[in-house]
Formats: sequence, C-alpha cells, structure tokens
Amino acid sequence: MRDDFHRALEALVEDLADMCGRASTLVNAASAALLEGDAAAAEAVAFDLKRLTRLGNAVHERAYSMLALQAPVARDLRAVVAALYIAADADRMGGLASNVARTARRRYPDLLIPDDVYDLFDEMASTAVEMADLAQSTVRSRDPGLARRVCDGDGRMNDLHRELFARLMSPQWQHGPMVAADLVLLGRFYERFADHAVEIARRVHFQVTGRQLTDGGDGAQPTAQVPG
Amino acid sequence: MRDDFHRALEALVEDLADMCGRASTLVNAASAALLEGDAAAAEAVAFDLKRLTRLGNAVHERAYSMLALQAPVARDLRAVVAALYIAADADRMGGLASNVARTARRRYPDLLIPDDVYDLFDEMASTAVEMADLAQSTVRSRDPGLARRVCDGDGRMNDLHRELFARLMSPQWQHGPMVAADLVLLGRFYERFADHAVEIARRVHFQVTGRQLTDGGDGAQPTAQVPG
Repeated sequence: MRDDFHRALEALVEDLADMCGRASTLVNAASAALLEGDAAAAEAVAFDLKRLTRLGNAVHERAYSMLALQAPVARDLRAVVAALYIAADADRMGGLASNVARTARRRYPDLLIPDDVYDLFDEMASTAVEMADLAQSTVRSRDPGLARRVCDGDGRMNDLHRELFARLMSPQWQHGPMVAADLVLLGRFYERFADHAVEIARRVHFQVTGRQLTDGGDGAQPTAQVPG
Repeated sequence: MRDDFHRALEALVEDLADMCGRASTLVNAASAALLEGDAAAAEAVAFDLKRLTRLGNAVHERAYSMLALQAPVARDLRAVVAALYIAADADRMGGLASNVARTARRRYPDLLIPDDVYDLFDEMASTAVEMADLAQSTVRSRDPGLARRVCDGDGRMNDLHRELFARLMSPQWQHGPMVAADLVLLGRFYERFADHAVEIARRVHFQVTGRQLTDGGDGAQPTAQVPG
C-alpha cells in the first residue's frame, strides 16, 4: 500500500515537471508568434494549451484520489497538497503564454513590437523560457540551489519591466498610447508568468528545507508559512 | 466523528471569511495611508498583517490535520482543499495591501498621489475594499450571485488601470517618470489584490455550481477545471 503510494507520488512529480516543461514550450512558441509573427507557432499554442490543461486536470484528479483513498499523513500529505498548488501554477503559466499569443494575433499580419523595445521583449521571452525550464528541473531534482536560480530570473524580469516602462514614458516614444498599452499588457503577462515559476520554486524550496526563499522582487510576498 | 468533522469545517469556513474581512480592513487602512498620509493607518497595517498571517497559518494547520486525521472524501475533501487555496489567496491580499502602505510610507510626509490621478486611486481603493467584502460574503453564504459580483468589481479595476495608464502617457502628464513608475506599481498592487478576490469567488462558485465563472477581465484565466 505505502509502496503503491510512493510510486504514485513519483509519477505525480514527474507529471508536474512535465507541466513546467510544457509551460516552457508554450511561452517559447507564444514569443515566436509575438516577435517573429510566426503564425504556425500561434496555432501550436492553442493546441498545446489544451494538452497542458488536460494534464493538469489529470494531476488534480489523481492527487484527490490519493488523498481520498490512501489518506496520507505528515510529509506525504504535504507532498500531495504541494502537487495541487504546483499544478495550478503551471496551468496559469500556460494561460499567460496563451494570452501573449492571442495579443500578438490581434495585430496579424503586422508585428506588434516596435524596434526600439524589441530587445526587451526578446529578453523577457528568453527569461521566461529559462525560468520555466529551471522550475521543471527544480520540481524534478528538489534542489534548493535551482529554486534560488528561479528567483534570480524573477529579479531580471522585474528589471526588464521597469526598463520597458522608462522607454514608454520617454519623450522619444513615438508609437502612441495604444501600442504602449498593448506593450504594458504583454509585459505584465511575462511578469506574471515569472511570478508563477517563482511560486513553484518557493514551494519546492520550503518543502525540502523548511525555510522560505527570500526574494528581491517587488511583488507581494506570500507571508504565511504555507506548509509545503 | 462525521459531526465533529462538519463542525470543524464550518469553523474553517468562518475563519476564511474572517481572513477576507481582515484583507478588506488592511486595504482600507493602506489606502488611507496612501491617499490621506494617515501614519496611524500605516502602522495598523503592519500589525494587522501579522494577525492575518497568523490566522492563515492556523487555518492551514487545521486543514492539514483534518486531512491527516479524518481522511475526508468526495465533497468534504474538496471543501478542505478549497480552504487551503482560499487561505493562500486571502493571505496574498493582505501582503499586497501591505505593499501599498509601504510604498506610501517611502514618501512620507509627502503625499505620493498627484491631484490629477487622485480620483482613480480613490476608486481603486473603494473597489478593492468592496471586492474583499464581497469575497467575505461569498465565502460565508456560498451564493453564486455574490461570486459574480466580485468579478464585476474586477472589470472595474481593469478599467481604472487602463485609465491610469492613459493619463500617465498623456502629454499633460507633468510629474515625471519616477512618480509614474510608483503609480504603475501601486496600480498593479490593487489589480493583483482584485485578482485574488476573484480567485476566491471563482473557487466558491465552482464548488457550489460545478461551473466555472467566466469573466471579462484581461488577465489569464485558469484554464484547468481545478476541482474546487
């Protein structure tokens, strides 16, 4: 019985890592749609998001079954509840990537990102992909050092967001407020994507070390010592 | 045994409602600190946040105990897991309110909000308080109609955010980019506060009706049918 439980838990963790990997693929494709006008990538996002959501639903159902049928306690209980939270975060990452792709598609065949902020979005995109990949490795390895690296990515994302804002506000900005509003929205999607990757890393870090990861971002810190 | 469980569940729900009420008090006091330079209100925020966090930790510990000791199934299991999520959301709301107060305090004794956007922040503040109050009533009453009203508030918050951005980008803006950056940050705190209130409402709505609340906001929708 206990062995069955631990095999099921391992499979659950592997699926969570897979969800993070799919969120990475999604934000990569959505960014290609945004930065290069890659219509095939935009199509792929809609399809891949459905697969991520299906996987998330399956993880949820299995976690519930494990709670209901095997009534785990202590460490095992906390691991299953953590899986519920992590699945929800990875699913939201996919939703945010899909928002990037949909925003890009509204302007097709035109490209939405002007040359003078292209570098920022290019770096937001690669940071997002890297953070999702690191979240995947963190979930799989349970390495607190990797969890800290996810938080480093978040600091970079916040810096990029601030720099974007400075350029939009500068007297040199010449693309008008409508484009600026779209860019702010896109910046927020990337930033919130990063926030969820950090949440996943923090949760694994707390589960493994019993200590909260501190971070240098400007977002609200979860203040509760939410178990596991 | 089952009666004990349901009494414990009722007490848990009452504490969740209490957490939403405290989040409302927090954002109200933080907004007084921001809009009126009320230093006593800013002090109260730090104190009240600690109480909210303590309550959140207690809710978490009790929910875990209920899972570990009583091994609920089906509807009861879903209610306890929903409580874990709702407590985390209410705790984040308190953290975001505290961020508003801290941002205001950085400029004391000066007031941070210029006259030409005061109306927007005043309305963001009252919308945030109202949404937290509605989330509290939704948790307590489990009324899907109230849950929908929380989402209406979110639409208003998004409109206010867009209007803020339009004013910051307008040629009439004369307070420079540093003030604008602070205001954007503050706007995001209110918006994310609202997002968490919506999450709470959506969770109750799904638990009661089995259907997802659709919403008109521009944020990422959670796409998974996360069992409530």
